Amino acid sequence: MMDRFEAARPYVGVFAIPPTPFLESGGVDDASLRRCLDFCVLASAHGIVMGVNASEAIALTDVERMRVAAITIEHVDHRVPVVIGVSGVSTASSVQFAAHARTSGADSVIAMPPYVRHPPGDEIFDFYAEVAAAAEGVPVWIQDYVGPVGTPMSIALMARIVNEIEGVDFIKEETAFAPQVITAVREAVGDRVRGVMGGMAGRYLMEEAYRGACGTMPACEVTDAHVAVWNAIEAGDEPEARRLHTLLLPLLNYEAMYSFTIYKEVLVRRGVIASATTRVPGAGRLDTANHRELDILLDDLAPLLTLGLRPDF
Amino acid sequence: MMDRFEAARPYVGVFAIPPTPFLESGGVDDASLRRCLDFCVLASAHGIVMGVNASEAIALTDVERMRVAAITIEHVDHRVPVVIGVSGVSTASSVQFAAHARTSGADSVIAMPPYVRHPPGDEIFDFYAEVAAAAEGVPVWIQDYVGPVGTPMSIALMARIVNEIEGVDFIKEETAFAPQVITAVREAVGDRVRGVMGGMAGRYLMEEAYRGACGTMPACEVTDAHVAVWNAIEAGDEPEARRLHTLLLPLLNYEAMYSFTIYKEVLVRRGVIASATTRVPGAGRLDTANHRELDILLDDLAPLLTLGLRPDF
Amino acid sequence: MMDRFEAARPYVGVFAIPPTPFLESGGVDDASLRRCLDFCVLASAHGIVMGVNASEAIALTDVERMRVAAITIEHVDHRVPVVIGVSGVSTASSVQFAAHARTSGADSVIAMPPYVRHPPGDEIFDFYAEVAAAAEGVPVWIQDYVGPVGTPMSIALMARIVNEIEGVDFIKEETAFAPQVITAVREAVGDRVRGVMGGMAGRYLMEEAYRGACGTMPACEVTDAHVAVWNAIEAGDEPEARRLHTLLLPLLNYEAMYSFTIYKEVLVRRGVIASATTRVPGAGRLDTANHRELDILLDDLAPLLTLGLRPDF
Amino acid sequence: MMDRFEAARPYVGVFAIPPTPFLESGGVDDASLRRCLDFCVLASAHGIVMGVNASEAIALTDVERMRVAAITIEHVDHRVPVVIGVSGVSTASSVQFAAHARTSGADSVIAMPPYVRHPPGDEIFDFYAEVAAAAEGVPVWIQDYVGPVGTPMSIALMARIVNEIEGVDFIKEETAFAPQVITAVREAVGDRVRGVMGGMAGRYLMEEAYRGACGTMPACEVTDAHVAVWNAIEAGDEPEARRLHTLLLPLLNYEAMYSFTIYKEVLVRRGVIASATTRVPGAGRLDTANHRELDILLDDLAPLLTLGLRPDF
Repeated sequence: MMDRFEAARPYVGVFAIPPTPFLESGGVDDASLRRCLDFCVLASAHGIVMGVNASEAIALTDVERMRVAAITIEHVDHRVPVVIGVSGVSTASSVQFAAHARTSGADSVIAMPPYVRHPPGDEIFDFYAEVAAAAEGVPVWIQDYVGPVGTPMSIALMARIVNEIEGVDFIKEETAFAPQVITAVREAVGDRVRGVMGGMAGRYLMEEAYRGACGTMPACEVTDAHVAVWNAIEAGDEPEARRLHTLLLPLLNYEAMYSFTIYKEVLVRRGVIASATTRVPGAGRLDTANHRELDILLDDLAPLLTLGLRPDF
Repeated sequence: MMDRFEAARPYVGVFAIPPTPFLESGGVDDASLRRCLDFCVLASAHGIVMGVNASEAIALTDVERMRVAAITIEHVDHRVPVVIGVSGVSTASSVQFAAHARTSGADSVIAMPPYVRHPPGDEIFDFYAEVAAAAEGVPVWIQDYVGPVGTPMSIALMARIVNEIEGVDFIKEETAFAPQVITAVREAVGDRVRGVMGGMAGRYLMEEAYRGACGTMPACEVTDAHVAVWNAIEAGDEPEARRLHTLLLPLLNYEAMYSFTIYKEVLVRRGVIASATTRVPGAGRLDTANHRELDILLDDLAPLLTLGLRPDF
Repeated sequence: MMDRFEAARPYVGVFAIPPTPFLESGGVDDASLRRCLDFCVLASAHGIVMGVNASEAIALTDVERMRVAAITIEHVDHRVPVVIGVSGVSTASSVQFAAHARTSGADSVIAMPPYVRHPPGDEIFDFYAEVAAAAEGVPVWIQDYVGPVGTPMSIALMARIVNEIEGVDFIKEETAFAPQVITAVREAVGDRVRGVMGGMAGRYLMEEAYRGACGTMPACEVTDAHVAVWNAIEAGDEPEARRLHTLLLPLLNYEAMYSFTIYKEVLVRRGVIASATTRVPGAGRLDTANHRELDILLDDLAPLLTLGLRPDF
Repeated sequence: MMDRFEAARPYVGVFAIPPTPFLESGGVDDASLRRCLDFCVLASAHGIVMGVNASEAIALTDVERMRVAAITIEHVDHRVPVVIGVSGVSTASSVQFAAHARTSGADSVIAMPPYVRHPPGDEIFDFYAEVAAAAEGVPVWIQDYVGPVGTPMSIALMARIVNEIEGVDFIKEETAFAPQVITAVREAVGDRVRGVMGGMAGRYLMEEAYRGACGTMPACEVTDAHVAVWNAIEAGDEPEARRLHTLLLPLLNYEAMYSFTIYKEVLVRRGVIASATTRVPGAGRLDTANHRELDILLDDLAPLLTLGLRPDF
């Protein structure tokens, strides 16, 4: 039987994004990080993405960014592919991260254009050329993401980047009408792109998969549930995939509002990381009513958490 | 038995927002509008909100805005309360709409601060004072909404407006962490606010209701389903409300991406309006894959559409 | 001698933008408006632009917008060309204004794309096509302006609009690096564009003129001074033009900070309009130190105000 | 005679901001940096500010940021006070920079709140508390700056920060209506703030000085001219100060459009740095017409460049 994702392998399925776990005192909690990586692998993530938006990468110092990347690559130790986020404040910043990721052994790297001041189209092209050069053959992902942190790109620009820059082989798409963009960009570049994944926590995965997405990159706290959905998709059982996805949706919907704080609180409750402390400015804090809501959402989701609500590992 | 929403009556429950239906040629389709209002009433909406974001009010001319408001008030004819959106490009604009709504017989009016250039806090206070004066006793709702169209307000500012301006009695809250804001603003103003409703298509209704929201204002295309959820909430049957809300969520999630185009397409499919034409800039268009997805979503939702997928009225 | 602006005539020189004067009570002050139009003509403005950003058009009701346009056209009575601003909240809104401007006798119309929600490129093209259709042969200006009110366009898009839509003949350019854009767009469209004017209060007029701009559209309060600069430019006396422009710059610089409030205060001081009342949200108010500064700036500028600081007309 | 700036000393006058000079190949050009620092001192700058917006600090890697700061402090070697910019992507990032600046011997540090995601008011307060703690007694400046890089603060918030956090002693103000904010914040905090400086390239210095500003922080390329203006201000000769400021204004106005590219091109022409290469995304490039314009602007400014157009040092 033909594998419709053959070109994309091994970048197919659920590429889970662990958070950067922090100590109550503010620094990175290495032990929780390692434990979280094991959790992702144990939950059958098809890959791991570290150092992107859901991991609060924009709030780390450069040294922290690179340490977290190195620990991730070393600790995962090729059990699954690792994609390292190399977005930065400038091309020089991303080049630094891409070179570090490469020498640290990353399987591929993913980047948005610089995110403090946003570059125009021709500078975006040059940006990806320099990142690809620094990656020296390690495949590069374009991340097309909404502002103010992302820089949405036109179909024409993404096609030009993929067509003209050796090494830019994948796209993660999460701008307005993302599923339509997935269709449009695949039509525009054809076989030149090895794969396109969706984002947005996987809330639109059913449609994205139908449109040819080779996977999704959600935050990792319920990786086991995401994997169950994907496996049904890949098995060609759309009704079952939809049934599972609908069970997952209430939590994803809740995360669309509270994001980081929920990602981490769920991981604390599941015994994976030690603290739900966040660092991104404006991330908010959960109050009593939030905790009550989360109790209910997790109870309802329990059947999908194949590792158990609180896995013993 | 005590009615915990007593102060808010009759502004309790699902206040449905009809779209502004357009002819293919671009003008307002009055016949579809009237039919859509009947649909809302038939679907047991507790009230109707016209001339706000989900109705593409920002894209109408002033004359269209006022005609649509007048038709709505006249056609609903007190079957349920009507809230008229009076947000505008300046205080003078909103004052014009508020005076018109009052003389046309609106039950209450709702306004965001001016939305082209955004006023600072002291001007926002003056804005609501002038709108309330123009409304001459018709109750005024504050709409606290995210940018770029909305102007998020601090708890302190909303409390000051409610406390000091006679006639500003209600709040519709839909900014970042909206459920938490509902809690905070209710604590800050106490009995001075008659009621706070949620927005965001009702996606967070379960938590908002728990925090004391007296209702929600969603787009109207599945009003029957929203009403089923609310009735279970008001009956005190939270598990049933959640069960129904989870059935509704896949469509709401889809609308979070495609908004206007889906609101209208669903109404076309249900035989309520004649055309799914939209006018707001950047609203997008549905493609084949969208239509396939919507087929599935509506099939799954059918049990909740108490009027039937295609009601005969 | 060849006239390098031949194609652009009569759209050459200083096209002054009168404010919309308001009564203290808030409505439009028709008497001040007519007096201000006379002032512009008396100050030798080469044309008048009404209903744009510097006239606070975004804060008027539709009825006010059209009344102000009609009064302007009627009162100027062909003494100089009148350009009417027809930007609006949607294509339908701009079409309404364009049709009204045409039937009222406007010489040309100018439009930014819709400014509440911003359209993508293909919708911008359709927007100008519909505006041009409504203008029925009255020449149309593209206004390329910065956000959040403007929608900056690519060179390619502006060229496509000018090349493919009959009637779109002029551009007003005021986005980032505007002078460079003037060069680029003129190279891209060649003779198809009859003229490109600068904006930004004329602060970059010397460079814009060198790059081929056929004029500038500043607020009108010191039209006599702007005209003196332009006349020196057109006479080919660049050193004199620069000398005069440098004398004008301190006031223009001050207006870059305080805009509307200064435009109007200067006109009040010059005896042209009755009140400096503004309406655009967040326009601010002048305090004692501002008035002191303005005293000094106007004293310094007096030699350039050929009508006198307080003309008797 | 009383010194009205006594409390602010030595933070009085022109605190010049050198660029970060880059090699054509992209890295930091240390030799040009040292030469530029000498230039600032030679031009009689009253102080030097390094690592802020005009120095493209947002585009440096953390290692580069700290190296540039250390070189600056070491090379200036107490000839004038050095203020180090410690704004960053998060509190942790700014704490890192503040601690490094302190141990490197900075005289004071200046920070905007985090600039990728923007914190709400209570987090801004905590941010300055943590920066001040990391600075361990080295005075801290609040930088109140416009978005998208800055996070404009209310008067009440700035007053609370200055009043309650030990060590936050100065403010640099450059948001909308900045001169009015200077008046308001000085009234709100009284003697608790040692000094408030203006920014915006010094374009509003005359009014800011009248309102009590103790200086200004412009880019450094014509420091000699800025110092001439300030010295006249401090000598109480307002007419002379205004005369000089007006001579300076055409270049400042030009920089308001082209910023980084002009700062650096002027320094290249004056023989101070080797290359005008910039790094901030979207900084643009100068074309032939820009160079012609700059030729003229610098010729006109020559009388004010007390070091000469091309100083020999």
